[in-house]
Amino acid sequence: MNKISEQQKKEFLDELLEFLKFPSISADSSYKDDLNKTADWVSKSLIEAGCDSSEVIKTKGHPIVYGEKIVNKDYPTVLVYGHYDVQPPDPLNLWKSPPFEPVIEKTEIHPDGAIFARGACDDKGQVYMHIKAFQLMVQNQNLNCNVKFMIEGEEEVGSNNFEEFIRNNKEKLNADIILISDTGLSNINSPTLTVGLRGLSYMEIKVIGPNRDLHSGTYGGTIYNPANALAKIITSLIDDTGKITIPGFYDDVIDIDKSKREEIEDKSNFNVDSFKKSLGINDVKGEKGYTTLERKSIRPTLDVNGIWGGYTGEGSKTVIASEASAKISMRLVPDQDWNKISDLFIEYIESIIPDSISVEIIKHHGGSPYVTPEDSKGYKCAIEAYKDTFGVEPIPQKDGGSIPIVPMFDEVLGLKTILMGFGLDSDSIHSPNEHFGLKNFYLGIDTIQNFYKHFGK
Amino acid sequence: MNKISEQQKKEFLDELLEFLKFPSISADSSYKDDLNKTADWVSKSLIEAGCDSSEVIKTKGHPIVYGEKIVNKDYPTVLVYGHYDVQPPDPLNLWKSPPFEPVIEKTEIHPDGAIFARGACDDKGQVYMHIKAFQLMVQNQNLNCNVKFMIEGEEEVGSNNFEEFIRNNKEKLNADIILISDTGLSNINSPTLTVGLRGLSYMEIKVIGPNRDLHSGTYGGTIYNPANALAKIITSLIDDTGKITIPGFYDDVIDIDKSKREEIEDKSNFNVDSFKKSLGINDVKGEKGYTTLERKSIRPTLDVNGIWGGYTGEGSKTVIASEASAKISMRLVPDQDWNKISDLFIEYIESIIPDSISVEIIKHHGGSPYVTPEDSKGYKCAIEAYKDTFGVEPIPQKDGGSIPIVPMFDEVLGLKTILMGFGLDSDSIHSPNEHFGLKNFYLGIDTIQNFYKHFGK
Repeated sequence: MNKISEQQKKEFLDELLEFLKFPSISADSSYKDDLNKTADWVSKSLIEAGCDSSEVIKTKGHPIVYGEKIVNKDYPTVLVYGHYDVQPPDPLNLWKSPPFEPVIEKTEIHPDGAIFARGACDDKGQVYMHIKAFQLMVQNQNLNCNVKFMIEGEEEVGSNNFEEFIRNNKEKLNADIILISDTGLSNINSPTLTVGLRGLSYMEIKVIGPNRDLHSGTYGGTIYNPANALAKIITSLIDDTGKITIPGFYDDVIDIDKSKREEIEDKSNFNVDSFKKSLGINDVKGEKGYTTLERKSIRPTLDVNGIWGGYTGEGSKTVIASEASAKISMRLVPDQDWNKISDLFIEYIESIIPDSISVEIIKHHGGSPYVTPEDSKGYKCAIEAYKDTFGVEPIPQKDGGSIPIVPMFDEVLGLKTILMGFGLDSDSIHSPNEHFGLKNFYLGIDTIQNFYKHFGK
Repeated sequence: MNKISEQQKKEFLDELLEFLKFPSISADSSYKDDLNKTADWVSKSLIEAGCDSSEVIKTKGHPIVYGEKIVNKDYPTVLVYGHYDVQPPDPLNLWKSPPFEPVIEKTEIHPDGAIFARGACDDKGQVYMHIKAFQLMVQNQNLNCNVKFMIEGEEEVGSNNFEEFIRNNKEKLNADIILISDTGLSNINSPTLTVGLRGLSYMEIKVIGPNRDLHSGTYGGTIYNPANALAKIITSLIDDTGKITIPGFYDDVIDIDKSKREEIEDKSNFNVDSFKKSLGINDVKGEKGYTTLERKSIRPTLDVNGIWGGYTGEGSKTVIASEASAKISMRLVPDQDWNKISDLFIEYIESIIPDSISVEIIKHHGGSPYVTPEDSKGYKCAIEAYKDTFGVEPIPQKDGGSIPIVPMFDEVLGLKTILMGFGLDSDSIHSPNEHFGLKNFYLGIDTIQNFYKHFGK
């Protein structure tokens, strides 16, 4: 592993801050140009880091950046995946500094400083660790792997066009393992290695009532108010024990046996009291019969991600809105299929609504759950890399989040993925004041280099 | 009754269009200056119509316009109430023409044309009928009543400062009857006279969960999502039979006996099929055991007026929002007290929420229900006035809306109110494309003059 000099640390950080200034919000089409500019910037940085070639590949949506360095055809090949697009930053008023004007601030958890910006941790900061780890090994001529980069711009909106790219470029993407840094560590002293991801089904529902907004005095009591109907539908999705009520929802869920569950709990350093304290809540809530750690990793869930309808301004307006909407997503676990679950969601809602309203349901995107096989060369090299960097063996842990592209890599390319993430749970990804620790950034660069060292042997 | 010449019709209409151009939205404090300008305009128009004096009275909120003409101290005095403020116009994208740029369009229901603008019917158009009816009688020297006008700017936000004005000006406001045009006719051929109003309790609830927005993958399933909790709270407010579940809610509701209910139904020209058709709904919905007409007039109700939380933009965002909110109002019937009902609402919600969330509840405003006594001189004169104008006796009908100031007039000034409204249910008050029929406007001017004629006898 090539040590990073203080001069290099400063250079790498300055470059990352430049990367973070692009408002590459994939969900909002008005940022299309910014995504194009970000892709160009990433492509340029791959060449500067030492790639033989790099290209910006147009899609129906935002472009994909591809770059590669073939050191020796006989060496093993690592395919690195990441994304340069970011989540929308709103609510903007809760940011302490503007989301696309990165600042470094020290925090209790990050005494050496953290970079505050949208995308700092998810995923620009982690993508940049890869580019810099690769650069160091090229410069020091100790890279014994071939490396291919594919950095896309639509991860936060479902990777629809990326999937087509994969399907059409199987040969180009030929490799031995996929490496992704888009997850987290439990903490910097006792690192975790992510060995599973939940799947995702993201839906949007619009409840439609009368043909126009109505005066709630003149009409109140006579028709089904779409906002009340929406509340009732949402409530009908989860019962009092925290179970999701959609018929067939749990049919394909693999139950993990008691001894394995106990082992996971014992190995983890999860503490429910610190968890509650960190979120400022008096109590947790979830599916009966499971611990908080289990609820966030090995069990499926359903959450409202957004809800809106009627008058939401200052003061009061006595209106019955003609429509009300919600975005609702479900996290899935092995062996739930996201398409099947999305269809069951639609069927169930259509079966429970009365004649007095109608609904329109949109499937936004989704992905299946994923489990990393613990007996592969890649997994073993990752364990060694963590040990080299941190001095301790990492704890294998399932992550509650979803990277829908990971099970897709397995299906289309036949490649397993190593999830080597360096963010912390408290880094507020997808929230205001997202940040990424400087120490995490540099430790990530070290660990990735160590991985190449072991994998190239 | 003084006939309105074609020349006068044109003049009156041009003046009203000018009145409608002011964006006098009382709920939004950024329109404060516009409300001041509207008040000045109303005051000037009262003088031009023939008032002896007129003043714009400052309050802690928006000003009140007062004007009077004392024809003879021995004549009976009519106190006219109305409001120059309007409901917020949003959603703006549903308006066919800008809400504060009035246009005249013919419609199926208004073949002679209707004025499309926010406030056309509620209540600027109806206020202006009063000013013009008064003007005609002054000009023709056949006004045998004294007239006092009080036109306020906070009706749509609860009339809080107007109440103080009433309490402090009992002598100034001394009168025999109050006349208000802020309700409707069932249709132009068989007019209705409003003999009751529902009360109102308008609440806002904010559900608070974790101390920040969270990633729904990392945290989904472990905490009570405020948007899901809000949906559950809303659902808990009404049971499957359409009854409101707040303990004590119905305690003071006066049950109307079966024969009276049948009489109301028989006298009305309400048709549930046309009602459904006009709203574009397949079915009505409401409290079990009551007809649609009863549900909208003699029964209390509860409706969500607005709901919001989380990500509501384009595409998807996998977030659990730290807060979710709703505006909820209840319409009340005799003898429910709005303050008591508001308190019961708060108590009930606080009793049902679990430890895993907290709530903040705001009382926005409210008012008690009102019933017009049918044996008064004012009521009898109103019946005669309608008969003169329309050639048929009006049908007495309870209105589902609320004018919280009406029961307050009774309590503070000891004065009964005659509700002489000329809008139609289909005029989309509080909705996009609010309008007011030109024929309704001129018939209103005639009927008000007829009322003065009878009341001044």
